[in-house]
Amino acid sequence: MVRIGWRSVAAACALALSPAAAGSADEDGSPLFGVRIPAGYRDWPVISVAHEAGNANDIRAILGNAIALKAFREGTRPFPDGAIIARLAWHYVSSPENDAVFGRPQSFVAGAPTNVQFSVKDAKRYAETGGWGYGQFENGKPDRSATLMQTCAPCHAGAPKGNDLVFTHYAP
Amino acid sequence: MVRIGWRSVAAACALALSPAAAGSADEDGSPLFGVRIPAGYRDWPVISVAHEAGNANDIRAILGNAIALKAFREGTRPFPDGAIIARLAWHYVSSPENDAVFGRPQSFVAGAPTNVQFSVKDAKRYAETGGWGYGQFENGKPDRSATLMQTCAPCHAGAPKGNDLVFTHYAP
Repeated sequence: MVRIGWRSVAAACALALSPAAAGSADEDGSPLFGVRIPAGYRDWPVISVAHEAGNANDIRAILGNAIALKAFREGTRPFPDGAIIARLAWHYVSSPENDAVFGRPQSFVAGAPTNVQFSVKDAKRYAETGGWGYGQFENGKPDRSATLMQTCAPCHAGAPKGNDLVFTHYAP
Repeated sequence: MVRIGWRSVAAACALALSPAAAGSADEDGSPLFGVRIPAGYRDWPVISVAHEAGNANDIRAILGNAIALKAFREGTRPFPDGAIIARLAWHYVSSPENDAVFGRPQSFVAGAPTNVQFSVKDAKRYAETGGWGYGQFENGKPDRSATLMQTCAPCHAGAPKGNDLVFTHYAP
C-alpha cells in the first residue's frame, strides 16, 4: 500500500483541473486557455486587414507567426500545432489631416488600440475547442473575463467551412 | 586638347539625365525614381492600417522595413536613408460570411489586391522630391505612367508637418 497525503492528492487534483482553473492561476495568461502574449508578435507579417463596424467599430490587422503564415500561403488546413494568429484592433477614426489633402472626407485610420486577441493552435491541449486556445489582452494584460473567453469558440464555429475555425483569409 | 567622340558625349549625357529618363530605362523600376520592389517586403511589420473611401475605395496595410520601423517607433524625423515604407491596398469589400455570424452587415475585408506603393528614403538621390523616391506596382510590375509618378511628391507635400512627407502615423 502506498500512502498518499492530502498534499499529494491536492497536487494531483490541481493537475487534473480543467484548463479554466489552470488558466486563471496564471496572471499573464487568458482565463480558460492560459494563452499568453507571444514574444515579438507585433513584428509578425500581415495575413489580412479588416474593418468591423457595429459595436466594435474598429480597424484591424491580422498577423501570424511563421507557422501560421506558411499554412495560410500554402492553404494547409487544419493549421499545424504552433500556429498563432494575432488580431490587433484600433478605434476606427476619420483622419481630418488626410481628408484635407484629398479634399473630401474619405480617410479612416487607426486610432488608439482597443485590444489584441490571439488564437493558438494546439490540437491536443485545446481539443475541447477545436484545437484552438484564445486570449484577449488590453494594455498588455489578459482580459480576466472567463465569460468573454467562453464566447470565442462558439463564435469561431461559424467561420467559413474548411478554414479550420478561422475567419480570416490570406490577402495576397 | 582631348578628343571626345560622339559616343563618349552620349554616355556623359546619359549619366547627367534626370532620374525620369534613368528610371524609364529600368523595366523593373518605377518611372522617374527607378524604385524597385524590395525583397521580402510582404513579411515586413505593420506600421498602421487604413481605409480610403472615395475613388480608391480600398483597405490598406502600411508596412515598413527595419529602418523605417525603428524610426517610427522612436519618432526619428526625418527618416534615415534606407527607410522604405510599403503601402499594400486591396479592394474594400463586405464579407457576407462574416456578417452572417455577426447577424448584421458590419464586416469589411480585403478583396483582390489593387496595387502596392513604395516610398524609399534617399536624401541625396531623391533630393528634388524631399528625399523620397516613389513607385507603384500592379501584379508585381511597375506602373509605367510618369504622369502618375509626378503626382507622388506634390501629394505627399500635404502630409502632416513634422512627419517628413509621410501620411502614416505608427499604430501601437
